[in-house]
Amino acid sequence: MIDRGYIDALTSILGDKGVVTEPAAMATYETGARYDAGRAALVLRPATTTAVSAAVAYCVRNGIAIIPQSGNTGLVSGSTPDGSGAQAVLSLDRLRQRFDLDRDNRSLHVDAGFHLSEVNRRLEAHGLFFPIDLGADPRLGGMLATNTGGSRFLKYGDVRRNTLGLKVVLADAAGTVLDLMSPLRKNNTGVDWKQAFIGTSGAFGIITECVLNLEALPQQVATAYLVPASGNDVMQLLRAMEERLGAYLSAFEGMSGAAVRAALAHVPSLRNPFQGGQVPDYVILAEISRTWQPRDGEQSLDAVLETVLAEIWEMEDAPLADAFVGPAQEMWALRHALSEGVKHAGRLIAFDLSFARGRVMAFCAAMKTELARHFPEVTICDFGHVGDGGVHFNLVVPKDSPAASDPTFETRLRDRVIARTVEDFDGSFSAEHAIGRKNQAYYDSYADQKLKDMARGLKSITSPGAVGTVRFG
Amino acid sequence: MIDRGYIDALTSILGDKGVVTEPAAMATYETGARYDAGRAALVLRPATTTAVSAAVAYCVRNGIAIIPQSGNTGLVSGSTPDGSGAQAVLSLDRLRQRFDLDRDNRSLHVDAGFHLSEVNRRLEAHGLFFPIDLGADPRLGGMLATNTGGSRFLKYGDVRRNTLGLKVVLADAAGTVLDLMSPLRKNNTGVDWKQAFIGTSGAFGIITECVLNLEALPQQVATAYLVPASGNDVMQLLRAMEERLGAYLSAFEGMSGAAVRAALAHVPSLRNPFQGGQVPDYVILAEISRTWQPRDGEQSLDAVLETVLAEIWEMEDAPLADAFVGPAQEMWALRHALSEGVKHAGRLIAFDLSFARGRVMAFCAAMKTELARHFPEVTICDFGHVGDGGVHFNLVVPKDSPAASDPTFETRLRDRVIARTVEDFDGSFSAEHAIGRKNQAYYDSYADQKLKDMARGLKSITSPGAVGTVRFG
Repeated sequence: MIDRGYIDALTSILGDKGVVTEPAAMATYETGARYDAGRAALVLRPATTTAVSAAVAYCVRNGIAIIPQSGNTGLVSGSTPDGSGAQAVLSLDRLRQRFDLDRDNRSLHVDAGFHLSEVNRRLEAHGLFFPIDLGADPRLGGMLATNTGGSRFLKYGDVRRNTLGLKVVLADAAGTVLDLMSPLRKNNTGVDWKQAFIGTSGAFGIITECVLNLEALPQQVATAYLVPASGNDVMQLLRAMEERLGAYLSAFEGMSGAAVRAALAHVPSLRNPFQGGQVPDYVILAEISRTWQPRDGEQSLDAVLETVLAEIWEMEDAPLADAFVGPAQEMWALRHALSEGVKHAGRLIAFDLSFARGRVMAFCAAMKTELARHFPEVTICDFGHVGDGGVHFNLVVPKDSPAASDPTFETRLRDRVIARTVEDFDGSFSAEHAIGRKNQAYYDSYADQKLKDMARGLKSITSPGAVGTVRFG
Repeated sequence: MIDRGYIDALTSILGDKGVVTEPAAMATYETGARYDAGRAALVLRPATTTAVSAAVAYCVRNGIAIIPQSGNTGLVSGSTPDGSGAQAVLSLDRLRQRFDLDRDNRSLHVDAGFHLSEVNRRLEAHGLFFPIDLGADPRLGGMLATNTGGSRFLKYGDVRRNTLGLKVVLADAAGTVLDLMSPLRKNNTGVDWKQAFIGTSGAFGIITECVLNLEALPQQVATAYLVPASGNDVMQLLRAMEERLGAYLSAFEGMSGAAVRAALAHVPSLRNPFQGGQVPDYVILAEISRTWQPRDGEQSLDAVLETVLAEIWEMEDAPLADAFVGPAQEMWALRHALSEGVKHAGRLIAFDLSFARGRVMAFCAAMKTELARHFPEVTICDFGHVGDGGVHFNLVVPKDSPAASDPTFETRLRDRVIARTVEDFDGSFSAEHAIGRKNQAYYDSYADQKLKDMARGLKSITSPGAVGTVRFG
């Protein structure tokens, strides 16, 4: 239990609305989207950067550990308190006043507590959007702290690429506010400090405001399912598409047959789009898009996509076994249902990995053999962002299997998959979910000692106080 | 003079080819591309990262300051020694062995001593390029250390955006090699340390190798000169182009009439492209490009550009006074000659500024009034990257003016322009040239004290030894 004096002091700083101590009201802040339930000492809900600064300064001076929490949709236990009941959750959910569009600069100064969906809804009338496409609907602060990428990375890049400025409250005794809010696109007058706070889970400071780069909204989209002739042909196919389509190509997503079957089985609204209901071993969802409607004499994007696919079809050793253009909404509906589908297929053990693009399919093939031998109860239901090397490597264990209730099973399986990823395929154990408590042990094992020492040094020059779930160094 | 023992020791580390002490041979390493001539104690020319490490360790242990030098084409005195004759220049010019293309990953592992032009010449056969378009031809190490942007930033971004990995030698007693060479596009497993070395002029370590993101080479390009109805219409025009063209738009460069006239007067190969030879007050060079040749039934890019310009022409309060599509090579030749032209027009005092896009024209207009009053001998010959907010703000003083030989004139003029840029227009005093000795005083004046303290801390956890021309903190 937290000292009553602390609660009173923080209430005098943040007001009644700014401090939550009722167990029932705290519960949603204590529980993660998919994993974890911890216990908070109290929940702080500041509504401005100044209030965040005052609350943080108080906590640091009084030795209260802070867990910054944004949309709480993360998958690595990065935004929930541990079980001690001694940590303060600092939620961004009231930090949502400022929303200033600079139309000329194609940029948005916005508080970090807005949801992604809300930002894009407000921007739609201006023909603009923040081009990060995710299954979940996080708040901006968490997107920045995890540097999310999503399904249109191939065209638009990640959050890092689309961030022009940040405001950050450091966990020091003063609650120092770093104003890195320049909306400039080109500026090389020193260290680009915002980079230290993007993707590092709040360990070096709490992001409270940002300036985002915006892009013109696509006005026309075309999609196709592509069945590669074999796993080895996936890269040939991607290269052929990139050569012919350049910046038109906005997504190139891979879906394993197992993941598709899980979605078709468990999400009733879906229709099986494959001929005779035969789900292929692997299928690509390719999307092209552009910011204008066809003008006089200009082909529709469906026609462009069909022309390009016909060209690829005519290649010697064509990497395609089958391909069909279809309605974008329906094709994406299946892609977006994969996550839901695999969750219902059994006990899910999920990984968010990435590789050099040419190694994604080799990794999946190697793991198929290896898991069949050592973890025969596991079904691989992978899908992901082949175009940028990302793989949501999902493993499903039948609920009635003894493994599903073996407490050591998940750890053994995780350790092996991640060892193979990092040691044998030079991959990443967290492509876009960051570290959190869930990946801490892998950071401890695999990060270079010198880089860990530097991270500890960075911590001491930014936020020496206890903030976030990740221990750097 | 450097101690003979140091020269012998470094020669035993780097071999005869690796150490230059002859004054005549050192001269090119002591002189900057446009500014400055200093004196070096000696020049080190290691050919591998391991050799850089050994040389750096020796220098740090013996208190020899190191000036890393790449192509030496920078404009801020960032790569030349001071006049003391006590500094060692460490040139990257022999660091050019490794050149490994990963076609599937669209990435290149390459030593930092290659010239940009050479990289792109070698990649051409593969239909790929490193998409940074510059007037100069630097080596990669310097491009990374200054984070150059160039003329196609609008479409491809800067060096930071196109860098996947780095190898860095720290200036510590061990010459520690940081291997940050992952070719992954998505990886959020800790601090993204490479960001600390990009754009910071080698102060935190010497970049010796990198992994670059490559893009598909454009196969078709169309260009137009656009004359805005007024300075206020430039942003309207940019917005209209971006809305209609999205990722087709690859450049939107502004050229003042004064800069164009200087180029036409001093570069004999140019032809005046304007009707009746009347150079407008301001003209935009717009470029669209795509990665394919027109397919059956598809319009040429010239036709696309003409259609779009006709649409803009039809707008109410059309922001255009005149526009014509023309041959890309000829149109770019004028743009690329501006720099040469203004150099011959008189004594040149050049600035590399940037602003939020909507403020570029307002800044230029305000300075026109202000300079006319306080520095009447100055002609403004600005040009630059309006599409990303960058301005090469060039001021020319007639060679026969008393100001041209007044030693305090340049400092007074610089201080005023940069004060207005930073204080009144929230701009940057170095958009893409970094700091160097030339901008050190402005860093000292304008950087936030807390950020300076953090930079000093970063220096101590990376490269405590003396390296580079910039003093951080």
